[in-house]
Amino acid sequence: MELKIVVIGANAAGAKAAAKAKRINPKARITVIDRGNFISYGACGIPYYVADTVGEIKELMSTATGVMRDADFFRRVKGVEVFTGTEAVGIDRQAQTVSLYEKASGRAYKLPYDRLILATGSSAAIPPLENMGCPNILTLKTIEDAELVKAKAIAGRAACVVGGGLIGLETAEALKIRGMRVTVVEMCNQLLPGLLDPEMAMLLEKHLQDQGVEVLTACKVVGFDGTSRVEKAITTRGEVAADLVILAPGVVPNVTLAEESGLKRGVTGAIAVDSHQCTSDPNIYACGDCCETTHLVTGKKVYTPLGSTANKQGRVAGMNAAGGDATFAGILGTSIIRVLEFNAGKTGLLEAEARELGYDVVTVLSPASDRAHFFPGAKPIALKLVADRSSGRILGVQAVGAGVVDKRIDTAVAAITFGATAEQLAQLDLAYAPPYATAMDNLIVAADILKNKIAGHAEGITPMEVRQMQESEEDFILLDVRSPAEHQEMRIKGARHIPLGMLREKLESLPRDKEIITYCKLSARGYEAQKILQAAGFKGVKFMDGGVLSWPYELERT
Amino acid sequence: MELKIVVIGANAAGAKAAAKAKRINPKARITVIDRGNFISYGACGIPYYVADTVGEIKELMSTATGVMRDADFFRRVKGVEVFTGTEAVGIDRQAQTVSLYEKASGRAYKLPYDRLILATGSSAAIPPLENMGCPNILTLKTIEDAELVKAKAIAGRAACVVGGGLIGLETAEALKIRGMRVTVVEMCNQLLPGLLDPEMAMLLEKHLQDQGVEVLTACKVVGFDGTSRVEKAITTRGEVAADLVILAPGVVPNVTLAEESGLKRGVTGAIAVDSHQCTSDPNIYACGDCCETTHLVTGKKVYTPLGSTANKQGRVAGMNAAGGDATFAGILGTSIIRVLEFNAGKTGLLEAEARELGYDVVTVLSPASDRAHFFPGAKPIALKLVADRSSGRILGVQAVGAGVVDKRIDTAVAAITFGATAEQLAQLDLAYAPPYATAMDNLIVAADILKNKIAGHAEGITPMEVRQMQESEEDFILLDVRSPAEHQEMRIKGARHIPLGMLREKLESLPRDKEIITYCKLSARGYEAQKILQAAGFKGVKFMDGGVLSWPYELERT
Repeated sequence: MELKIVVIGANAAGAKAAAKAKRINPKARITVIDRGNFISYGACGIPYYVADTVGEIKELMSTATGVMRDADFFRRVKGVEVFTGTEAVGIDRQAQTVSLYEKASGRAYKLPYDRLILATGSSAAIPPLENMGCPNILTLKTIEDAELVKAKAIAGRAACVVGGGLIGLETAEALKIRGMRVTVVEMCNQLLPGLLDPEMAMLLEKHLQDQGVEVLTACKVVGFDGTSRVEKAITTRGEVAADLVILAPGVVPNVTLAEESGLKRGVTGAIAVDSHQCTSDPNIYACGDCCETTHLVTGKKVYTPLGSTANKQGRVAGMNAAGGDATFAGILGTSIIRVLEFNAGKTGLLEAEARELGYDVVTVLSPASDRAHFFPGAKPIALKLVADRSSGRILGVQAVGAGVVDKRIDTAVAAITFGATAEQLAQLDLAYAPPYATAMDNLIVAADILKNKIAGHAEGITPMEVRQMQESEEDFILLDVRSPAEHQEMRIKGARHIPLGMLREKLESLPRDKEIITYCKLSARGYEAQKILQAAGFKGVKFMDGGVLSWPYELERT
Repeated sequence: MELKIVVIGANAAGAKAAAKAKRINPKARITVIDRGNFISYGACGIPYYVADTVGEIKELMSTATGVMRDADFFRRVKGVEVFTGTEAVGIDRQAQTVSLYEKASGRAYKLPYDRLILATGSSAAIPPLENMGCPNILTLKTIEDAELVKAKAIAGRAACVVGGGLIGLETAEALKIRGMRVTVVEMCNQLLPGLLDPEMAMLLEKHLQDQGVEVLTACKVVGFDGTSRVEKAITTRGEVAADLVILAPGVVPNVTLAEESGLKRGVTGAIAVDSHQCTSDPNIYACGDCCETTHLVTGKKVYTPLGSTANKQGRVAGMNAAGGDATFAGILGTSIIRVLEFNAGKTGLLEAEARELGYDVVTVLSPASDRAHFFPGAKPIALKLVADRSSGRILGVQAVGAGVVDKRIDTAVAAITFGATAEQLAQLDLAYAPPYATAMDNLIVAADILKNKIAGHAEGITPMEVRQMQESEEDFILLDVRSPAEHQEMRIKGARHIPLGMLREKLESLPRDKEIITYCKLSARGYEAQKILQAAGFKGVKFMDGGVLSWPYELERT
């Protein structure tokens, strides 16, 4: 007898699941239901369509070879039936049927299944705000949203993006590219909360401010004001002019259908699944933004919806529903974003997460050139490594900067997946030629510094700790060991200056009873200076991790 | 008592070893000897200086912050003495002294050591050729070479590069950029022998030919002809006009000093070292291009000189000489090159190497876009995975194309280092956003195809095998399942054409008694077609790995 597989949701996860199920089991009858009119489109591309970086919306709905991924495509090429504009309104798990409602015709009917795959996705978690019904207050999730935002995004006018997460920042970029005056309002103390540690987020924030995007962190929008349309956002830090508001809060899984049919939800609130993407009902699978997954470092359940994960889970759900045996291992919470020529990514645990989990955390902040410094186009990136001191195991890596960060993140993904230690990371035989990397890639350098820290050779201190010492007016010497020209250009207020090349000669000018914190542009000369001072008998010498390039506070300039 | 460490060679490995030794043991007295006048320069940058991609030679000799890395820098900053223009002519291991000869003064003297570090590097392995003394026959290894080549590289004239390895191709690019008519002559059947499998090398060769660089493979230079200067190279495939010849053969380790002092050489001919970079004399270390190392996949000794390896080994040798305890794990033979906007890289084993070692080899050829296909700037890359069928373990990865290959290689480096299987590679939580990757990165897609092949779902055949079947006039159907427009643009001669979307309807037009090989632009539709035909009862259906994009032979065009 023909196996009947019904898939609810025809975007990344659902479309992948359906196609995979058919490949594995060509005799199965696969039906995909979607309440929308557009299916299997590159939702992640929507901000780029708004920015006109992607010229035509149909590019987001086509295959790499330019074929429209519509119902006809799925029927002809994939051998799968797709019903759009059709809402799944209930599941009868006993009878194994799904109740459907066809919007255009108003027809209600039931579809029997042997296996059901839920790929119901997620929705924006919009909090109730005053005057939210004001015209020109929009979200940006669907293709219909995109068209509306493009129509309303008028150059020269003010836009307020509520939310400084991935979608918020991608939207802010798009509106900025369209010529709007953009303000991003973020409730947390930093941009990309949960995705970057504060000092890394500050480097990104600095870049956005430099590019003319206003950023207000630790700022909560409480409502809006306006007559015929929105005119301003009312926030805890005052009013923000806004001819257009984009709400870009986090997302929540669409679980109503699952919940109403009695399927188990996990600790995160999303649909609970096992490693086979199977729900609490053995005939029902779930994949993509509607379900939770496992973090590979902590082993804990997490909810981190992402297009790449949705595709992988869809493949697993599709195979298993069709009679195969596939598993989804879990995720590292890898994220990446490009905003106005600045890249920011991370994988694994943030420092705060690692500390909360009780690790004996050691970190490194390592800025460096993304390729040979003499190679044209070389740009800086700052890496942060978070590791467990006792085992040396790398727990997380963050990378930000104008240079290439995605390569370092992906390499770290593979390393962390296999439990790499700092020693093992430092040994990787990474590809080297001047157009691609420095002879010692920043990942290797950072891992070496980590090794030095764990071994007790290097004593680092973070820019944030130095800042706190300054603010509490502690008596210490901040020693700039850069060249006179570098010092002349910009410097941290209150620092003393002895170029590294003069340090061995000028040791006597430094007091031996004060804590000395050395720093340079990056980290190497600061560390070198620490070693010179230590060798000369100075006690309590530290170098500032990441140097001036990682100093996210103001600098004196001439 | 003060520990005396002498380092012979002041480039990548030696300079790193000296600096590291001083950091670890600030009281040690470190002396570095170099026979050249320029030290610690970015030798890998020389071709880019010849191309004027790097404007000034001093950029290659400076730190990232613009400080000249000369003897004064090493003394002031690193606390290390450097003697340039000084040749080490002998080692007395009994007395623990090095005999030196200062070229400028003619002074000969001895330097005592407690620990000696050999970083003597490598030399070009130039075979004896007829008329090699002809003017304008040069090599490109040192800064002096670079100045000479720049002076002789006259736009419009003919250059012949002897050797299609990394240095040969980087040099060919430089001369092409300078406006010369360039021919590369390579003895082996392909470019980059030992670095790419033949079909990958053919994609590179095709690109170079398209860019106007003449490539002659399976071609041996036997001598040169010319009166006042070289005019042509005489090869086994005829004469090649040449106003300038660059000899770019492989390199051999400089082992004379080590050999004369009785240090053991390894199976590769380079200096034998253990994992501590220690030679057969416990007081003598070696690092960089003069010594051999261990391949991490095979466990065998190999000679693969590279700047990145030299730096890592220098660090280990320096630490150990200074009393530390560091090890160098080995290498994967990772290599990468950019030639005229085309990238080619590999890590781990080539297919041929894996077969020779007795693995039950399974491979995948997977071309795809390097980022979301709708994102501007997206460019193709072709990946080749080499794996062991029984264990599923990834043995090697190659990547070529105009798109970003270094990221995929570095990710593969980490994966292969930890013994990743196809299943594990396919599960990696790689960073995804449209500017960086497709939702399913090509590495994941390739690993999935590999899984399908190992599981027996997918039956692939390589373009080279298809070509052989054509040449031996086997009776089979080559079935193009691309769109009519794609077929119209270019096609493989003799192929039949049924667009994938029509295939289910047109099954009856295909014979059931012949082998059918399906193909598309990449691989997905070819595989899809294979599954459709199989489901319809066709036997012996295969899809051609990598599709038209990986077909390195001629194509019919309209």
